[in-house]
Amino acid sequence: MSVSSCKSARAFNLINGPMTTGPINAITDIAGLAVGHVTLRDGGLRTGVTAVLPHQGNLFRQKVPAAAHVINGFGKSAGLVQVNELGCLETPIVLTNTLGVGTAFNALVRHAVAGNPDIGRETGTVNPLVFECNDGFLNDIQAMSVSERDIDAAIVTASTGAFEQGSVGAGTGMSCFGFKGGIGSASRVIELDGKNYHLGTLVLSNFGRAGDLVLPDGRRVIPPKAKPVAEKGSVIIIIATDIPLDHRQLDRVAKRGGAGLARMGAYWGNGSGDIALAFSTGWTIHHDDNRDVVPVMMLNENRIDRLFRAAAETTVEAVLNSMTFAPETTGFRQSWRPSLADWLADYEG
Amino acid sequence: MSVSSCKSARAFNLINGPMTTGPINAITDIAGLAVGHVTLRDGGLRTGVTAVLPHQGNLFRQKVPAAAHVINGFGKSAGLVQVNELGCLETPIVLTNTLGVGTAFNALVRHAVAGNPDIGRETGTVNPLVFECNDGFLNDIQAMSVSERDIDAAIVTASTGAFEQGSVGAGTGMSCFGFKGGIGSASRVIELDGKNYHLGTLVLSNFGRAGDLVLPDGRRVIPPKAKPVAEKGSVIIIIATDIPLDHRQLDRVAKRGGAGLARMGAYWGNGSGDIALAFSTGWTIHHDDNRDVVPVMMLNENRIDRLFRAAAETTVEAVLNSMTFAPETTGFRQSWRPSLADWLADYEG
Amino acid sequence: MSVSSCKSARAFNLINGPMTTGPINAITDIAGLAVGHVTLRDGGLRTGVTAVLPHQGNLFRQKVPAAAHVINGFGKSAGLVQVNELGCLETPIVLTNTLGVGTAFNALVRHAVAGNPDIGRETGTVNPLVFECNDGFLNDIQAMSVSERDIDAAIVTASTGAFEQGSVGAGTGMSCFGFKGGIGSASRVIELDGKNYHLGTLVLSNFGRAGDLVLPDGRRVIPPKAKPVAEKGSVIIIIATDIPLDHRQLDRVAKRGGAGLARMGAYWGNGSGDIALAFSTGWTIHHDDNRDVVPVMMLNENRIDRLFRAAAETTVEAVLNSMTFAPETTGFRQSWRPSLADWLADYEG
Amino acid sequence: MSVSSCKSARAFNLINGPMTTGPINAITDIAGLAVGHVTLRDGGLRTGVTAVLPHQGNLFRQKVPAAAHVINGFGKSAGLVQVNELGCLETPIVLTNTLGVGTAFNALVRHAVAGNPDIGRETGTVNPLVFECNDGFLNDIQAMSVSERDIDAAIVTASTGAFEQGSVGAGTGMSCFGFKGGIGSASRVIELDGKNYHLGTLVLSNFGRAGDLVLPDGRRVIPPKAKPVAEKGSVIIIIATDIPLDHRQLDRVAKRGGAGLARMGAYWGNGSGDIALAFSTGWTIHHDDNRDVVPVMMLNENRIDRLFRAAAETTVEAVLNSMTFAPETTGFRQSWRPSLADWLADYEG
Repeated sequence: MSVSSCKSARAFNLINGPMTTGPINAITDIAGLAVGHVTLRDGGLRTGVTAVLPHQGNLFRQKVPAAAHVINGFGKSAGLVQVNELGCLETPIVLTNTLGVGTAFNALVRHAVAGNPDIGRETGTVNPLVFECNDGFLNDIQAMSVSERDIDAAIVTASTGAFEQGSVGAGTGMSCFGFKGGIGSASRVIELDGKNYHLGTLVLSNFGRAGDLVLPDGRRVIPPKAKPVAEKGSVIIIIATDIPLDHRQLDRVAKRGGAGLARMGAYWGNGSGDIALAFSTGWTIHHDDNRDVVPVMMLNENRIDRLFRAAAETTVEAVLNSMTFAPETTGFRQSWRPSLADWLADYEG
Repeated sequence: MSVSSCKSARAFNLINGPMTTGPINAITDIAGLAVGHVTLRDGGLRTGVTAVLPHQGNLFRQKVPAAAHVINGFGKSAGLVQVNELGCLETPIVLTNTLGVGTAFNALVRHAVAGNPDIGRETGTVNPLVFECNDGFLNDIQAMSVSERDIDAAIVTASTGAFEQGSVGAGTGMSCFGFKGGIGSASRVIELDGKNYHLGTLVLSNFGRAGDLVLPDGRRVIPPKAKPVAEKGSVIIIIATDIPLDHRQLDRVAKRGGAGLARMGAYWGNGSGDIALAFSTGWTIHHDDNRDVVPVMMLNENRIDRLFRAAAETTVEAVLNSMTFAPETTGFRQSWRPSLADWLADYEG
Repeated sequence: MSVSSCKSARAFNLINGPMTTGPINAITDIAGLAVGHVTLRDGGLRTGVTAVLPHQGNLFRQKVPAAAHVINGFGKSAGLVQVNELGCLETPIVLTNTLGVGTAFNALVRHAVAGNPDIGRETGTVNPLVFECNDGFLNDIQAMSVSERDIDAAIVTASTGAFEQGSVGAGTGMSCFGFKGGIGSASRVIELDGKNYHLGTLVLSNFGRAGDLVLPDGRRVIPPKAKPVAEKGSVIIIIATDIPLDHRQLDRVAKRGGAGLARMGAYWGNGSGDIALAFSTGWTIHHDDNRDVVPVMMLNENRIDRLFRAAAETTVEAVLNSMTFAPETTGFRQSWRPSLADWLADYEG
Repeated sequence: MSVSSCKSARAFNLINGPMTTGPINAITDIAGLAVGHVTLRDGGLRTGVTAVLPHQGNLFRQKVPAAAHVINGFGKSAGLVQVNELGCLETPIVLTNTLGVGTAFNALVRHAVAGNPDIGRETGTVNPLVFECNDGFLNDIQAMSVSERDIDAAIVTASTGAFEQGSVGAGTGMSCFGFKGGIGSASRVIELDGKNYHLGTLVLSNFGRAGDLVLPDGRRVIPPKAKPVAEKGSVIIIIATDIPLDHRQLDRVAKRGGAGLARMGAYWGNGSGDIALAFSTGWTIHHDDNRDVVPVMMLNENRIDRLFRAAAETTVEAVLNSMTFAPETTGFRQSWRPSLADWLADYEG
């Protein structure tokens, strides 16, 4: 078994389906969207930070329509209440380990204040958006090792284009169906009114009981040396699209991430914080807009099945990528997770 | 192709899994729970009524804890608002076609008033609980042919024990993934504190785009002569258990019916009314209770994954049963649906 | 005490506040919106129907953005699930007594099919929108006396302009804080981008425990011969506006109807079905739209407080109008409700 | 105008009503419940921390049934998702300023780990529960001055019995209807089955537009030198009871805090984070319970109106206490808030 097995789920012929992928086959097929990672791998630490920036501008000034959907709420993510009341997000999206949420909150506040000195003075406060999974199996999570500097670095170094998947950033210490999980992504092209739009998904996978994984071809996958334990994981699903959607439509799309999870054998376990966020870059909300009534665009609801299908399909592919790109990992207190890539290579070999 | 192909999904070896089925492998494994059908098959009519009675007593006097979960809300089911506010149901559960909801409402009111003459006078009104799917493809739904007498008959003739599945009762005119759908059921045994409890599910299946069905073994099934059309169906999932659960727990269990649908290839299409109701017979709410504080039982939340798994698994098996028990059907205006049983028999043959 | 006391709450100097009313000071200040009543007053019957038509066109073809908000869900209103999934309504809004919901559902189906013969055949089904309160104190509600013909008549005779308030239509048998309740309305003008828009509210009032009513000037009002009994009422709040709002914004506005109720002394009692529906005529959703992406307008969220204030204020004024326009009433089995107008006239006199 | 005017709302004869207060007339009438404050008043700082401990034991081991209800979600409170999924809380409740949420999250994690070293290792993680309001008018909120040590100190020094109200702890820098707001509390006795139970409320008041306040006697109160500005406040309502309630019932009770706010003239403004949390000490959830099915108690729903009334009444009284106990305050950059106590003293004088 070796790192060299790691490649995309498509390279393992796990994915088929009629929808076309975007050029990168990742959430960064949405123009202007950037992803950044900081990875902490030292001693008992197997953790990190992943930041998703919906666009390159000032997010507090140019908010993005968004909806957060709780699939199963055993989770500590921050910022969901306001996203769902106002229907938009206004900071970079930070993913990290569960006990890093407070620090990420602080870092996002300072980042927003630095760019918008009127926050909490001439204008309202800011709503930091932080998602988390519990990497306590492979990582010494009690060390609370993620710093505000790490969060900043993930934001500052975020870039458009292809990015590393698997055991990286917030995904460094995550597990999925008893294998090594982590960061994965996928995208689809959707044609509307003769123009190509995109829907892209990024997941932080840390869910699924060992033995429950079902591959798209029907194979059930039991990891080597698996112990049957209750699901204590979580999964975060970030769905981005350049199709103009309103909050209600985004909530409907986010929900379909859960259909993707279920297709892999999950039933959204009690101890799992399964949360999906969907946002659109198809229009923005100006913090300082002087107009009272504002023109916007929205999708004809009769076309939304295409997005539902894309949300479910990209969630499946992104989760598989998070596993097939991740090598086997030994972590805190000699904990160990095998790689799905190795299992697949052995199966074929 | 013939009716004689029709048998259970287990008889086709479609189902495997570690959980044990109840003795009947149907929702009627819940003691005292009764199911009744009225089938209308005449001219262009392919429709009917199915009634589920949680127990044999006066449901208005002895209400049952319940929760309704909207998976996708393109539907006209009645009574959900009050079920979720008060956490209980107080009438038989009636399933029928979409345009029969009003008549079912009226019949349930008269049924409740007949047994409780104080309704709307000395005590409050009653909350009829009606679920529906649109059988307008095989059935002349505009005829609004279901009568109050039909609703009554389904309630009065409901019985415990095994019952007919497939193209019967409310399922007579339903379609599923381009095949004939209808009524299906399944159950699982769950051991708690050394005692055997049960979770049973009954579905009215009318969802899924032709070509999207994936069998548990990974086979993708395309019905003969299928035309790719948008999903305009719906599915109703009734989950019953004798395990004591409160409203919040029942809502969590109901939600997992949606995981079962997704495993079959559905993504809860825009035009589909996908609704799950879960109820428990483990305790009841007395309409005339004189005590101010009441002792009840509830499940230790740390055990709820067993119910989640059972809810997802029984939903899959119930949907498959609704199809494998249903023969091919010709209906209104020469519409036609093939039988999954025939497809499976041909595949094997 | 006499009918001649009956007049508007403003005529009793109950209302003050900075916001300007519309020309009619009723929900019909929304251009094109029509209201119709059918009143049944015979023997023990004190009931009826009120219909609200958001516009004069074919509502199934030109749907109206809408949101339903459940303040307290002890109620049997129909159609809310789909309104909140799709964010729109597609039939006239019918208000009637609790046990008339089924009949209203049937009538709305037939009305929609008559105007759209493709329903349930070439296109999907239709979602009837029916709201109810329990008039069982003054009315022989078990008689289920409202007919489909009555529902039709309320729709067909609906007209724009001023309409009767108080003990009329669906309000004929309703009670409020121990007084006679019924139908009331009010409106406010809201200037946006230099143009006058409107928000109008119609209530069906049947809530509030005798002795809990507080007038805007702080007077607490105890009805004559009041018996302290648990609240078994309900109230329906229909809020219309010509300001363009999306579903999320409409839900937020609808919720503020509840603030109006609370200001009058209500706490949304356990046995009360308190439901608010808000809709906008500022844009419509074409059933047969061929465009994939559609331009719409929406309110700048920073201006929404004006609508919140108007929603709360018009709810208070509409409830007071429903009472001050209603004469004392004797009904089923010699039940009796005094008139707030008489109480106010006596107080002044 | 002077501090000496400050006294309870009852001492100003603002409160009347039939329900009996508890012996302390505060949330600490719930046996075992403790409240602690840390106040930061230095230079431009007018802020602090208030901690509420539902009981004196290990909250992670003995969780308390709870429900969080979002009245208006322009807020950054943390922990609500899990409270509503699992129906319980498992840490002290911390209230502080908006930008202190991250630090409070960190402090609560460390506090929980110190008492439960298995967190994030042998057992799951912990869900810190933090509520906030924006004190940026009187306080230099950008300084992010609340430290983990301050959070700890509020928890450690929390005590049962009477506690300071007004401009103290998290309330130090808050404003309400243009006056000085802060911390207030009130309670009511509710007799059930012949035994005295209690419902107590603590608010952190920071809401309401200057000029909108209406006193229970109908007087409208305009603060001196008020500038009409959009509501940018927030209010947190913590409702505790020793009556056994389940999650659904607690959510219903929490919601009635919003009725209390509305009675004072609020309409839950767009920019306000109005959030209510209700919990019961009537039963607890053992983290390590070995039983699969657990006996619990719950309130007969037919009695819940008493709790609704108490929730609305105590919210009103608690908000008034938060104002009448608070002296006029000058803060960051010479900002100033008058005292309602002074206004009332002048009015009487």
